[in-house]
Amino acid sequence: MTTSFATPQDAEDAFYDALDERDAALMERVWEASDDIACILPMSPLFHGPQVRELWKQIFDGGAEIDIQVKHIRWIEMPDFAIHFVAEAVTANEGQPAQPVYATNAYRKGPDGWYLVLHQNSPTPPPPGAIPPAGQ
Amino acid sequence: MTTSFATPQDAEDAFYDALDERDAALMERVWEASDDIACILPMSPLFHGPQVRELWKQIFDGGAEIDIQVKHIRWIEMPDFAIHFVAEAVTANEGQPAQPVYATNAYRKGPDGWYLVLHQNSPTPPPPGAIPPAGQ
Repeated sequence: MTTSFATPQDAEDAFYDALDERDAALMERVWEASDDIACILPMSPLFHGPQVRELWKQIFDGGAEIDIQVKHIRWIEMPDFAIHFVAEAVTANEGQPAQPVYATNAYRKGPDGWYLVLHQNSPTPPPPGAIPPAGQ
Repeated sequence: MTTSFATPQDAEDAFYDALDERDAALMERVWEASDDIACILPMSPLFHGPQVRELWKQIFDGGAEIDIQVKHIRWIEMPDFAIHFVAEAVTANEGQPAQPVYATNAYRKGPDGWYLVLHQNSPTPPPPGAIPPAGQ
């Protein structure tokens, strides 16, 4: 069994695999074991440090089936740090695919491999008419 | 006139000053001059590279007065890279302050100082009742 991730992409693949398979143990392994980590999901407050593991536990316990297709937009790769910008096509609970969600994943290299330190995604505008314009 | 930023915090201060003062020239100076940069605003697609400057030009041309109070949550500081997690209290066009917006700002050190490479913020949940729950 692999216990660490040799590249940022390996860690990213594991993150989305954990999401897809609702694998809480794999999700826990992907994140850096530090207070620095942060996770910001759409329309959600910022969670950081140990709150991140609690957040994912609750999401997996919540029971939503989440199917995500990931498309890479751009990378910033440095010797010990990397940021990936991706577009996620998310389908929850077998519903219609929503608008793409743009996400930033940041990874830091530790002594034994790469770990996720930030996952943040922002919803794109809802389809026209879904939400009334402000003030109307 | 200072032409570069000695610390990530200096670059961050300049970013929010540029926003506050609608200073397009300062905003342009804050961002790294590379195709790596990315900006994701709430409910907006990802802009990267030269699109980022165009985006800010359009925002400033659009004429919205934006008042932002910034509260720091946490930093990840490395020798050549830094990420700041902040909460923004945004008031646009003298309206009521909205829910806090969580933002990630990432900075990279170049030969002559620090530059912004990523600004991403995500809206927090709207107040109860503002948007009908999905499926109702």
